[in-house]
Amino acid sequence: MSGTEEEQAVGVDPEAPFDAGIYGEDGILRADYLAHIGAAIADRDTLTLKQDILKLHQSELGDLIEALMPEQRRALVELMGEDFDFSALTEVDDAIRMEIVEDLPNDQIALAMQELDSDDAVYILEDLDEQDQNEILAKLPFTERIRLRRALDYPEETAGRRMQTEFVAVPPFWTVGQTIDYMREDQNLPEEFSQIFVIDPTFKLLGAVHLDQILRTKRAVRIEEIMHETRHAIPAIMDQEEAAREFEQYDLLSAAVVDENERLVGVLTIDDVVDVIQQEAEEDLMRMGGVGDEELSDTVAATSRSRAPWLLVNLATAILASLVIGLFDATIQEMVALAILMPIVASMGGNAATQTMTVTVRALATKDLDIYNAARIVRRETIVGLINGVLFAIVMGAIAAFWFDSSGLGGVIAAAMIVNMLAAALAGILIPLLLDRLGADPAIASSVFVTTVTDVVGFFAFLGLARVWFGLG
Amino acid sequence: MSGTEEEQAVGVDPEAPFDAGIYGEDGILRADYLAHIGAAIADRDTLTLKQDILKLHQSELGDLIEALMPEQRRALVELMGEDFDFSALTEVDDAIRMEIVEDLPNDQIALAMQELDSDDAVYILEDLDEQDQNEILAKLPFTERIRLRRALDYPEETAGRRMQTEFVAVPPFWTVGQTIDYMREDQNLPEEFSQIFVIDPTFKLLGAVHLDQILRTKRAVRIEEIMHETRHAIPAIMDQEEAAREFEQYDLLSAAVVDENERLVGVLTIDDVVDVIQQEAEEDLMRMGGVGDEELSDTVAATSRSRAPWLLVNLATAILASLVIGLFDATIQEMVALAILMPIVASMGGNAATQTMTVTVRALATKDLDIYNAARIVRRETIVGLINGVLFAIVMGAIAAFWFDSSGLGGVIAAAMIVNMLAAALAGILIPLLLDRLGADPAIASSVFVTTVTDVVGFFAFLGLARVWFGLG
Repeated sequence: MSGTEEEQAVGVDPEAPFDAGIYGEDGILRADYLAHIGAAIADRDTLTLKQDILKLHQSELGDLIEALMPEQRRALVELMGEDFDFSALTEVDDAIRMEIVEDLPNDQIALAMQELDSDDAVYILEDLDEQDQNEILAKLPFTERIRLRRALDYPEETAGRRMQTEFVAVPPFWTVGQTIDYMREDQNLPEEFSQIFVIDPTFKLLGAVHLDQILRTKRAVRIEEIMHETRHAIPAIMDQEEAAREFEQYDLLSAAVVDENERLVGVLTIDDVVDVIQQEAEEDLMRMGGVGDEELSDTVAATSRSRAPWLLVNLATAILASLVIGLFDATIQEMVALAILMPIVASMGGNAATQTMTVTVRALATKDLDIYNAARIVRRETIVGLINGVLFAIVMGAIAAFWFDSSGLGGVIAAAMIVNMLAAALAGILIPLLLDRLGADPAIASSVFVTTVTDVVGFFAFLGLARVWFGLG
Repeated sequence: MSGTEEEQAVGVDPEAPFDAGIYGEDGILRADYLAHIGAAIADRDTLTLKQDILKLHQSELGDLIEALMPEQRRALVELMGEDFDFSALTEVDDAIRMEIVEDLPNDQIALAMQELDSDDAVYILEDLDEQDQNEILAKLPFTERIRLRRALDYPEETAGRRMQTEFVAVPPFWTVGQTIDYMREDQNLPEEFSQIFVIDPTFKLLGAVHLDQILRTKRAVRIEEIMHETRHAIPAIMDQEEAAREFEQYDLLSAAVVDENERLVGVLTIDDVVDVIQQEAEEDLMRMGGVGDEELSDTVAATSRSRAPWLLVNLATAILASLVIGLFDATIQEMVALAILMPIVASMGGNAATQTMTVTVRALATKDLDIYNAARIVRRETIVGLINGVLFAIVMGAIAAFWFDSSGLGGVIAAAMIVNMLAAALAGILIPLLLDRLGADPAIASSVFVTTVTDVVGFFAFLGLARVWFGLG
């Protein structure tokens, strides 16, 4: 093939399967691939679609769905019919998933749920309203209905919601040989697994054996001789973030999930946990930036509404800072240079505080900051604030003295900057620590409180020192 | 036992092993446990230490080391002697690891490296200077030296550095039975693994088989009949973040690492990748907060130095904003209320811009924002900026009109806020997009540019409109 990418996209034979990789060098779906699929959808060419789409991984199909227009998404799902891989819906934005699922008849969803692993099915079902959930569950075979119902009965964002209910469990008195034979014959095994569990007749968890251990052991050995204690069984009601931390801490690949009676109810695997870990780190970033659980596919109305509260809080604190300036209106009238310079003092404090706060919030989230090093870190931040405060005070003092031809003004802004950058360091670490101690999420509220402190202290120190030094009104 | 925690900590029998869990309810090491270990170190009681510490998981030992004082850490490593589990060093801060390793003789390090998985050994060795690295490698047996040297020869932060060089590989013509027998007999297997690889005599990668597949297949079947193509082999020189994205995208548990000739050189496992994923999300947060690769254990000097450049850039942009205010000094002198209100306009713009920028930076990092939805997202952000701009302009306009008893001033600040929040939305999305297109990291520089825009536009719009409206100087 020759010609530019765009020519290829137009000149491509829609009957031929798409053999090039679907991603470009930048890791983004190729424009010609998208045009090819778009053309096949427009032509209602199910043959080409099935040919190309059935070979995609669920996450590739998810990327494709996100890149399509809403009406194309609907048409794609319809054209693929029973061949549509619903697991791809676990890879797209919540809003897009809802848009697709709400369009489909419950019969079709119920059929699709039987093809999915239980964790994927629960992921899709949990966002539906209760009536639809019940209708869909009612159409499922008994065993699957019970499995999904059990997972859905655990609260949102718990290990019970994320677990897979398919697993291999054997009694302790079986031999390695019996176990291998059982696995060779049972058709109902999970798709891929790395350990098998050992249970008593009441499903109480006794231990686990890694597959490599089974492979390395002679057939006659009993399972109980090679099983290890499952030290890290996860209670089904444990918060998913806490479960993710267990996985991280103990480098787990999969873990048994047990109910309140220590009975095995499912297995949590690391690929589900990776998503939780990433979400958690993302949440901190989003909260510190003053945005909530927003998604790219959210509507204008939803986005405006979710961001407004934060802006309102910021308005209140900005007015508070203005009230402080208002105390010095006569001072400013006598010396307008103060109005020109004052934002610099506030801005440098705000930035220094954000640096300290970012480190603190992240360290609290990863549990790296605790009572054993808190005192040392507060001390370090205070000294860093002082050093950088003095450094930038000298620079800015010199600039101001030169700019307004007044060494007095240079001295005043230098002193104010030292005061404010010290306040910034203390606010940046103590406020998140305090919020954490009070059980609040330090990522959400810290920014507001911290910049309020640096604005108020900055304006007050600078304008107050100037009034005293120059004997102004 | 009775009494408060502190009494217990003092009254504890240092000879008795510590049987309670080592973490408190808040997930932080218990104070009494730390006191118990501290006492044993002070008494140089190696019996108690070995008894208690040998049963810790490497990450638990890592947490313990981080909680100890520097001199206690040194004493602990010395007292544990050959029983010290070096893999715990992969779980602590870089600075603490360096502090411990640099204190140890190279002989002891070389001995320890032989006990570790190759990925852990590389993790510890890569931070040492080249001379120490060479000395330590020279003391290792030939095979291990070659293995570690090969991993260390790949550039930093690549898959080759993170891979494990221990793996099971078999020829395609072996049967399942032969493979199982080989694994039963070979003592040199990796500690835990979930798939075996299939190679030709030149080590070229042909495919892989999951262990569960082997367990489910009859002994007489040939490996080549059940092996699957390894679609996601990772080149050793691939950046570790890109490798992590492959794991996420395709839900991999482990992946073959191949050299430039497609020969198998190692295996990358998901537990190493989880750390990379977390680090990557953390980096965005840190960069947007104006801090670099800082760690909690960094010294005052290192911390001050790493934060100063960002503060310097902020100083420059703050001065730029002040120059804008300086254009209006006569205007402010005639109407001091402007100086009081102007920070509100800038602050609201800065916050709105930060919201948009946070969403944009994160979406770029996760590749959720691409050419297919960029236009839609820019449109959405603009409309959201306009809606929230108008909303808060009305609120603030009314407050200002009432506060200074001037409906004209209310109108001016309202108009300025609408202008600035629109500018904020555009800057918040277009600047990161532009930086990304230019190949720069949007997380690092966006904050500076974006708040410069909202400060300059905010001050200029507010003071300029006021000058025109009130006919001031």
